[in-house]
Amino acid sequence: MVDYETFELGDVALQSGATLRDAKLAYKTFGTLNADKSNVIVYPTWYSGQHYDNEWLIGEGMALDPQKYFIIIPNMFGNGLSSSPSNTPPPYDRARFPHVTFYDNVAAQHRLVTEEFGIEKIALVTGWSMGAGQTYQWGMSYPEMVERIFPFCGSAKTSLHNIVFLEGVKVAIQTDVAWKNGWYDKQPNQGLRAVGRVYAGWGLSQAFYRERLHIEMGYSSLEDFLVAFWEGFFLKKDANNLLAMLWTWQNGDIANTPGFEGDFEKALSAIKAKAIVMPGQTDLYFPPEDNEYEVEHMSDAEFRMIPSIWGHFAGGGINEADTEFIDRHIKELLTT
Amino acid sequence: MVDYETFELGDVALQSGATLRDAKLAYKTFGTLNADKSNVIVYPTWYSGQHYDNEWLIGEGMALDPQKYFIIIPNMFGNGLSSSPSNTPPPYDRARFPHVTFYDNVAAQHRLVTEEFGIEKIALVTGWSMGAGQTYQWGMSYPEMVERIFPFCGSAKTSLHNIVFLEGVKVAIQTDVAWKNGWYDKQPNQGLRAVGRVYAGWGLSQAFYRERLHIEMGYSSLEDFLVAFWEGFFLKKDANNLLAMLWTWQNGDIANTPGFEGDFEKALSAIKAKAIVMPGQTDLYFPPEDNEYEVEHMSDAEFRMIPSIWGHFAGGGINEADTEFIDRHIKELLTT
Repeated sequence: MVDYETFELGDVALQSGATLRDAKLAYKTFGTLNADKSNVIVYPTWYSGQHYDNEWLIGEGMALDPQKYFIIIPNMFGNGLSSSPSNTPPPYDRARFPHVTFYDNVAAQHRLVTEEFGIEKIALVTGWSMGAGQTYQWGMSYPEMVERIFPFCGSAKTSLHNIVFLEGVKVAIQTDVAWKNGWYDKQPNQGLRAVGRVYAGWGLSQAFYRERLHIEMGYSSLEDFLVAFWEGFFLKKDANNLLAMLWTWQNGDIANTPGFEGDFEKALSAIKAKAIVMPGQTDLYFPPEDNEYEVEHMSDAEFRMIPSIWGHFAGGGINEADTEFIDRHIKELLTT
Repeated sequence: MVDYETFELGDVALQSGATLRDAKLAYKTFGTLNADKSNVIVYPTWYSGQHYDNEWLIGEGMALDPQKYFIIIPNMFGNGLSSSPSNTPPPYDRARFPHVTFYDNVAAQHRLVTEEFGIEKIALVTGWSMGAGQTYQWGMSYPEMVERIFPFCGSAKTSLHNIVFLEGVKVAIQTDVAWKNGWYDKQPNQGLRAVGRVYAGWGLSQAFYRERLHIEMGYSSLEDFLVAFWEGFFLKKDANNLLAMLWTWQNGDIANTPGFEGDFEKALSAIKAKAIVMPGQTDLYFPPEDNEYEVEHMSDAEFRMIPSIWGHFAGGGINEADTEFIDRHIKELLTT
């Protein structure tokens, strides 16, 4: 009994050169596709998130209203539901799972949207964090198809600082001897807990902790927040899945699209969709400055910042004020 | 053959309740103590730094001019030269080394200054990072003795966010099975390398990496910087020493001084020294906001910020412009 569908992709040749055989794309839809197929929203997932982790932004009266829109949440490769190290049969299983790019993810999602649903236009692509990465990639890969994009707390190209932050996450898993280069039988739980502690300073902001918002969230102390929220969060994940998605993230770059040969500015200017690009003001690994640069090179984009001390998690659906802010601006974009 | 002196402290009763027997305070001096002992500068060390790592701020024509001043660099407990896990004989050796506070450090340094040199007034205490923590503590513990303080890129109380960042550093060591709860015979080198990777994103700033200053520094790639600078930096350190100093840092709070019972604002206002408090504009773990708050509660303090994208390392003596900025403002403070 699952709450989602699976699209059988068959054999998928990836940018890395590997072919993922019998690849699966897990997805969930909300609402009804209208007669002229003009009410489509695509809303990809984020680092380790699964479709249900995206649902906070969907609801009656919200921008992503299932009464009005047909909303598709495709699960990113590596997230444990779509093809991932944890669910792929040998020989491409576990540590041998191939490298997957945002380009690969979006190509698979495009097949779902066109082959399964016969959709030709997408009213909006939106997503948080790595979901934002896929959002830019949609605008880049299918400029004639995507009418609007709303990437929040993410970037079109993973910055060097962001890559460095992720090195700390990666090494936390890899330092656990139980990781066994990915050939573990039991999860490397100490490494997963270490990821939680490494991530805890990055995911939120200095001001978040200064204002003790973890106490407002209901945690009884800083240590309780580190154990119950952060360690608990990563203990539920598969280590190889985390490392597979981490590779996708570190190598995020829309200019990694055939025909663009790494020319980032050219790639940005090839996005035709009307865009609002929305960073969180205090995001430590997707800082607003990188989005400002992007918007300068996009043809029809506006930069708007979430005024929040929730760091990267301003876009995570935990804090009502931030969610309301995001929702309001998506509504505005959808009316244009 | 060593380039420093050692002051024999004898038995030191610490705030934690342990007594460190035959404790040592390693130090180095520059210049000559003048007849009325009015030319004294104390310049404590930082996290894992040793006295020679402080020397970049000392020189003829600089604020810390050995032609004019008698400069004492006391090595912090745990740094491998003063009493530390790595050099203390059993039973208080290695994993059993006791918890040491900034208060304890400064009490020992005060004994050096008074007992060894008969000094009654200190013209200036200054220091970077944890050296700044000791600088505030000097102003707090000995308000009648310390005329000026110039803490840079540090704080009088370690913020919760800073504590969380350090959890990531700590767990990187502890996840290495070779660490053996501190009872290793060989250094846990994978854990030390992991610390380097975790630290790399924190020590500098987003803008540092955006501007590729690691290439300007002479590293051939991002990975080369991570290995040659960051892993190399921590591979030279002793894991238990790093953990001992990390405890001191996480528990930094000048209100942890007898008579103040954790009243931070009261403690700040008890500092009588004329102060310039100088954060780095892009410091990710000692953000300027925390210093602004401090200065509001100090009796004679000014807030001045290093306009730099070198993050915490604006105060590390690597970048000439930042060094010049710091030096100029210390000069100004010394003339008042």
